[in-house]
Amino acid sequence: MTSLNDIGVSALVNCGSALVFFLCFIIFQVQPMNDRVYHPKLYIKDKERKGSPTSRSHRRYLERYFESDCRPYLMSFKWISAALRMSEQNLIEHAGLDAVIYLRIYKIGLKIFVPLMIMGLSVIVTINIGGGHLNSLDPDTNLNSTSISTSNSTSNATLLFSDIDKLSISNVPSASGRLWAHLVMAYIFTGWTCFILYLEYKRVSIMRVKFQNADRRRPEQFTVLVRQIPQTSQESVNIQVQKYFQLHHPDYYLSHQLVYNANKLARLVKKREYKGEWLSFWLLKLQKSDQKPMTRTRIWGLCGVRVDAIEFYLSKIENLNKEAETERKLVHQDDTKTMPSAFVSFKTRWGAAVCAQTQQNMDPTVWMTEWAPEPRDINWKNLAIPYMQLGCRAVCVGVALFVFVFCFMIPVAIVQSLASLEGLKALFPQLESILEQKNFASFVQGFLPGFILKIFMMLVPYIALGLATFEGHVSLSKIDNAAALKYYYFGVVNVFFGSILTGSAFQQLESFLDSSSVVGFLKTLALTIPMKATFFITYIMVDGWAGAAFEILRLQNLILYHIQNTFFVHTEADKLRAMNPGPIIFYIGLAQLQLYFLMGLVYSVITPIILPFIVGFFGINYVVYRHQIINVYDAAYESAGAFWPFVHGRIILALIIEHLMLIGLFFVQGPITFETIESSDDDSTTQKVINFLQQALSSTPFIIALPIFTYIFHRYCKTRFEPTFTNYPLEFATKRDMDDKGKDPNFNISQFLQNSYKHPDFLDEKPIEETKEIVKTIQQNVTKKKFRPLILRNEKVDSAIDIPNMCHLSTFIQ
Amino acid sequence: MTSLNDIGVSALVNCGSALVFFLCFIIFQVQPMNDRVYHPKLYIKDKERKGSPTSRSHRRYLERYFESDCRPYLMSFKWISAALRMSEQNLIEHAGLDAVIYLRIYKIGLKIFVPLMIMGLSVIVTINIGGGHLNSLDPDTNLNSTSISTSNSTSNATLLFSDIDKLSISNVPSASGRLWAHLVMAYIFTGWTCFILYLEYKRVSIMRVKFQNADRRRPEQFTVLVRQIPQTSQESVNIQVQKYFQLHHPDYYLSHQLVYNANKLARLVKKREYKGEWLSFWLLKLQKSDQKPMTRTRIWGLCGVRVDAIEFYLSKIENLNKEAETERKLVHQDDTKTMPSAFVSFKTRWGAAVCAQTQQNMDPTVWMTEWAPEPRDINWKNLAIPYMQLGCRAVCVGVALFVFVFCFMIPVAIVQSLASLEGLKALFPQLESILEQKNFASFVQGFLPGFILKIFMMLVPYIALGLATFEGHVSLSKIDNAAALKYYYFGVVNVFFGSILTGSAFQQLESFLDSSSVVGFLKTLALTIPMKATFFITYIMVDGWAGAAFEILRLQNLILYHIQNTFFVHTEADKLRAMNPGPIIFYIGLAQLQLYFLMGLVYSVITPIILPFIVGFFGINYVVYRHQIINVYDAAYESAGAFWPFVHGRIILALIIEHLMLIGLFFVQGPITFETIESSDDDSTTQKVINFLQQALSSTPFIIALPIFTYIFHRYCKTRFEPTFTNYPLEFATKRDMDDKGKDPNFNISQFLQNSYKHPDFLDEKPIEETKEIVKTIQQNVTKKKFRPLILRNEKVDSAIDIPNMCHLSTFIQ
Repeated sequence: MTSLNDIGVSALVNCGSALVFFLCFIIFQVQPMNDRVYHPKLYIKDKERKGSPTSRSHRRYLERYFESDCRPYLMSFKWISAALRMSEQNLIEHAGLDAVIYLRIYKIGLKIFVPLMIMGLSVIVTINIGGGHLNSLDPDTNLNSTSISTSNSTSNATLLFSDIDKLSISNVPSASGRLWAHLVMAYIFTGWTCFILYLEYKRVSIMRVKFQNADRRRPEQFTVLVRQIPQTSQESVNIQVQKYFQLHHPDYYLSHQLVYNANKLARLVKKREYKGEWLSFWLLKLQKSDQKPMTRTRIWGLCGVRVDAIEFYLSKIENLNKEAETERKLVHQDDTKTMPSAFVSFKTRWGAAVCAQTQQNMDPTVWMTEWAPEPRDINWKNLAIPYMQLGCRAVCVGVALFVFVFCFMIPVAIVQSLASLEGLKALFPQLESILEQKNFASFVQGFLPGFILKIFMMLVPYIALGLATFEGHVSLSKIDNAAALKYYYFGVVNVFFGSILTGSAFQQLESFLDSSSVVGFLKTLALTIPMKATFFITYIMVDGWAGAAFEILRLQNLILYHIQNTFFVHTEADKLRAMNPGPIIFYIGLAQLQLYFLMGLVYSVITPIILPFIVGFFGINYVVYRHQIINVYDAAYESAGAFWPFVHGRIILALIIEHLMLIGLFFVQGPITFETIESSDDDSTTQKVINFLQQALSSTPFIIALPIFTYIFHRYCKTRFEPTFTNYPLEFATKRDMDDKGKDPNFNISQFLQNSYKHPDFLDEKPIEETKEIVKTIQQNVTKKKFRPLILRNEKVDSAIDIPNMCHLSTFIQ
Repeated sequence: MTSLNDIGVSALVNCGSALVFFLCFIIFQVQPMNDRVYHPKLYIKDKERKGSPTSRSHRRYLERYFESDCRPYLMSFKWISAALRMSEQNLIEHAGLDAVIYLRIYKIGLKIFVPLMIMGLSVIVTINIGGGHLNSLDPDTNLNSTSISTSNSTSNATLLFSDIDKLSISNVPSASGRLWAHLVMAYIFTGWTCFILYLEYKRVSIMRVKFQNADRRRPEQFTVLVRQIPQTSQESVNIQVQKYFQLHHPDYYLSHQLVYNANKLARLVKKREYKGEWLSFWLLKLQKSDQKPMTRTRIWGLCGVRVDAIEFYLSKIENLNKEAETERKLVHQDDTKTMPSAFVSFKTRWGAAVCAQTQQNMDPTVWMTEWAPEPRDINWKNLAIPYMQLGCRAVCVGVALFVFVFCFMIPVAIVQSLASLEGLKALFPQLESILEQKNFASFVQGFLPGFILKIFMMLVPYIALGLATFEGHVSLSKIDNAAALKYYYFGVVNVFFGSILTGSAFQQLESFLDSSSVVGFLKTLALTIPMKATFFITYIMVDGWAGAAFEILRLQNLILYHIQNTFFVHTEADKLRAMNPGPIIFYIGLAQLQLYFLMGLVYSVITPIILPFIVGFFGINYVVYRHQIINVYDAAYESAGAFWPFVHGRIILALIIEHLMLIGLFFVQGPITFETIESSDDDSTTQKVINFLQQALSSTPFIIALPIFTYIFHRYCKTRFEPTFTNYPLEFATKRDMDDKGKDPNFNISQFLQNSYKHPDFLDEKPIEETKEIVKTIQQNVTKKKFRPLILRNEKVDSAIDIPNMCHLSTFIQ
């Protein structure tokens, strides 16, 4: 029942808050003290900007923290053009291909929806307004007889139509000839979307191939992950792998690296890193205060016996180092810790490509080969999962996903009912007096249910990620993809259909299976969809517009950074951790994006007035994320756009959902036909032919053909482009091999690949002696009073104490 | 309403006719004159039996045609043990692996259904009889209140239950605890079926691998079919292919053979063969009659000018030879006749395996590689289809298949209505007097509709084959598989569901989509299924039992052979053609088999009384087809059991259909639960827990889990075994390559592969001069009166006149 007026108010509020956020962002980002929050990527990576922070450090004290010059404020919207200026090629070098392809998705949104918006608003809205169906209805009888209501939708029939509805397909009378226009538009829209999708798939696959063939050797081009090496009692896995590949790939096999279950070692190394950080903290304190620092032995130094802090942590590190050393040896010796998997490297790309794409053994479940992921992209923990478990895990995750998607609202409802006044009274009878206070009661009733829902919804991405991780994919990129898929399904069922149909998802499923028929279900949906347009418009403004502004503001990170900086940051490592922006969380972004494609496409024909809002979403987010990718996020891995087939598939799914909704609508409206040609003579044969033509030319076959065409298009794209995302063509392999040979005939590929696929915790076997020596030097310097502050150039300490995530530091502080 | 009595009568009739057929077979097959009908395979192939037909030729004239000795008649059932005696290994050598695996399917039917029958008859039938539900109903009210009838099945509710129904699940009251037994049995049956399927898939894949690695070089092991070679204007396809593979597979590429569109040449060669047969006929006549044979020039020598027959056909052949020669040159020169495909051969199996399984180009739709089919297995005509057409063809076939499966009954109904009395009167008003005769009217009404249906049904396999061929598969085995799939779908919809639900398939589809819900549809089906058991029992006896006996009798072939032998057989080639049994028509056999699996599995829990009939079907057919494969059919190609995944998949589909029917039944019967445990105390918490347990332990989740488990099993088998049917593991390739090298280091693989993948019509470039010379020799011999009859040893003539399908002859006549 939202009128256009209400929408206007909502738009005002949301645009207002978005503007406020942007304004805050402009003010905040100009302040030098926030620089590490708003441009961490540049701190970490960008060499061109290196001058700017250091130049700032020469300023006066206050200016280091606040920008007093007004020029930066005036040039406030420069960041937009700055974000848009960088060329795609530079962006690939700066942020990786994944980020660039991710940005392309927003651009595709614009490419698809801008023409759809123009046509929708000019053609469909005009036709809908001209339909004048809703005006012709007596307002008094609307409650139970809007012409589109059928017996199936008793609950919906009570909804009144709004101003927005007059712009929607609901305003067109049943079986009106005007519906042909909608049908034609549906074809045009689908055709345009498919056309854009085709171009983009082509472009993205070319980008991927180009990127993979860029003039740089990558270890993953030479390496294959072999799984399910059959266990024999006679030979160790190590010898077995060597023999096998020397026999079956004699000309190409180079070396291999076994996979170990080093999860315990990883825990030990992590613990040692943590202790190492404490050690640097105390060393810094020693340098500053000149006094022997003391600490207590338990719970962050809060209780226990007082001891010399440096000695204490040094001995802790020594112990952990020893433990790690023992564990390292154990892992190598203990056969149960050797997984039946190996990274096998080949002399040429050709050899690796052949091995990765062929079946080795008669039993396809042993000696399984696949491309090794990029070293950064490996999830080492999941590599330790026995392959045979994966099937069971997949089944479990399937069941869990079903429960998660369809039964998620059940615990929410239970907690909500427990958190109601009555529920609380029953749980805590002793608090009854407090609960009966009016203010508290209204708080409980008004705020608590929404708050509980919000809390539960915040858990959803983590659940999706947890499920995806549990599935046991060996690469982070695959986990991201799987999590995006799960999160998307959740969104479609609980956000999209959940908003359209009332009742929980599980009830929907039940009603779909039980009471109504397939077409009946579609009809019910089709009836409700136009009425929910206003809801989705508000949703887009809140989630898409204001959300984007909030994203760029990074309020959460800003506050956290300053809190950490003030209270907890002791060493440069801490500072780096506090400012660390992490990667874009692809799976949340992808799932969210796909929901907008779904909304846009479903409403494109039904209520095209929603399209400008969708276009707004894509436009704003494109700029915002371009800025964020340039300035903030740092990629965790590079999968060369491996998520693209997923994106493509989901947009196709959105198209097909659109078509199903349209089928429902056209079934509700009754099949429309061309006007009957009244034949003047009564010849029955002619009449028969005309009748037949009329039947054949009714809308039904045309509307049913639409999803079929879309599906065929999808199949075509799949066979045409998808192999590019799984295989590495031999042609390229030969070409690159020959290029390499020509350029650098004596390149030692063996050395190049030596440590690429070693578990990272096997690599840093730094002896404790080095650390001890550095500690000693510092202590001597302190006693000799000739130390210089190590805060800015403490690579030496760091490298000695060996904190892997401080490795950025050296680049940055130089 | 069929009682057990009626079934007995039907069984008697069908068993009777089956027995008569078998008896006829025994009598007929003993006759020497029928030997070529009942043992053609042995004539063609079997060397051990060579003595027996020749020894018969020494008998007296009559005995050559009729067996007067009574011993063979007495040992009449020897053929059964003879059929069963041959070991599997011998059978593989004798008839090929395809035939052996085909026979295994019947054996699997026995393995699955014999234990099911025993358990079904002993457990389920006992439980059903004990149910006593149908007895408790008042017979008078049966018409409208059999307890299983719901409002959904008004038409079915009027059916009376029969004696058979008392043995079926219908006899168990709703929500009875007895249904638990059915649920448990469903699990046991499914588990057993899956167990057998697993063992068989394993066994078959081992057989396939063993066969492929048998100690014999096969051209297909070294050859890859490359398709979609991109056209460039600069280079011919020939040079392009050579360059490409020399570059990308430098160590393994051996040679290649381009694919030409030689369809016109094939027509010319076929025509020449036909003329060649006429020439041999006239030459024989010349030798016999000693007179210059004359013929007329047109329509099988019936009209036109009288000419010297031998000269006439010799000139015809000469002309055709010239034409073929021109066409042959043209094909080689004309670029439009060179298809962008080639058979590329490699030096080693390893090289071919690598090329077949890897992606060559960035664009996966050019330079596509796949294993070359066996040379015999190639469909040369389809190789000439441009690859880009295949997608369109697949879409067209998809649509056509849908129409074929769901709308097939519409033209049948139309023709039937035209062929009714009224229709005929309207069409031929002048015949009204004849039509009104009583005899004729009863013929039209009683016989014509069934006859028309029969005629249409006879077309079905040809339509399925036509559709499959049109899809453009390049190998005969794939066409067979695709045709089997189509024929099977037709059977499931039109025979199985068509018999269960009344109305045409299209109406069923409509009713499924429109009026009833998913579960409602299942319920309707579930209600009708038990009632149709008697129909299917009759069907099995007619189609399965009597059909098998009719198959072994080969009455059609017997009659045709003798007619041809008497009137048309002039040359030995004609005789061979007349007796030629052809291959087993796999696609018909497979589709039929699968229907029996479907019937058996669906009824295994519902009406297990059907199982003995199914077991009978598999038993009889196993023996019959074993006999036929040994004695009659000659394989056209060898695909090493490539159809197995199809067979496996269809049995899984049958299982899932069974489970869906059971879900429908259990929904109708209402979810059954364990007896409520009456708790003595009134503690509400305990009661709640019990209620919850009761809910959780109701049948619903258990029955729904069944198809999911089956599907998971199917996925497992697919990943575990299916690659064996598409890939050739590198391990075997290396092994076989090394074996070969060890045994025969100087083997000329180039020569071995030289002509393997040449279009067969390019190979027989026999010059006309040779034919002429032979004709001359014969003519001279005739004039000199010193010829010897050529009928028994005419290899020379045959080879000169060059009739490829006479190549058997030389082996046989020696």
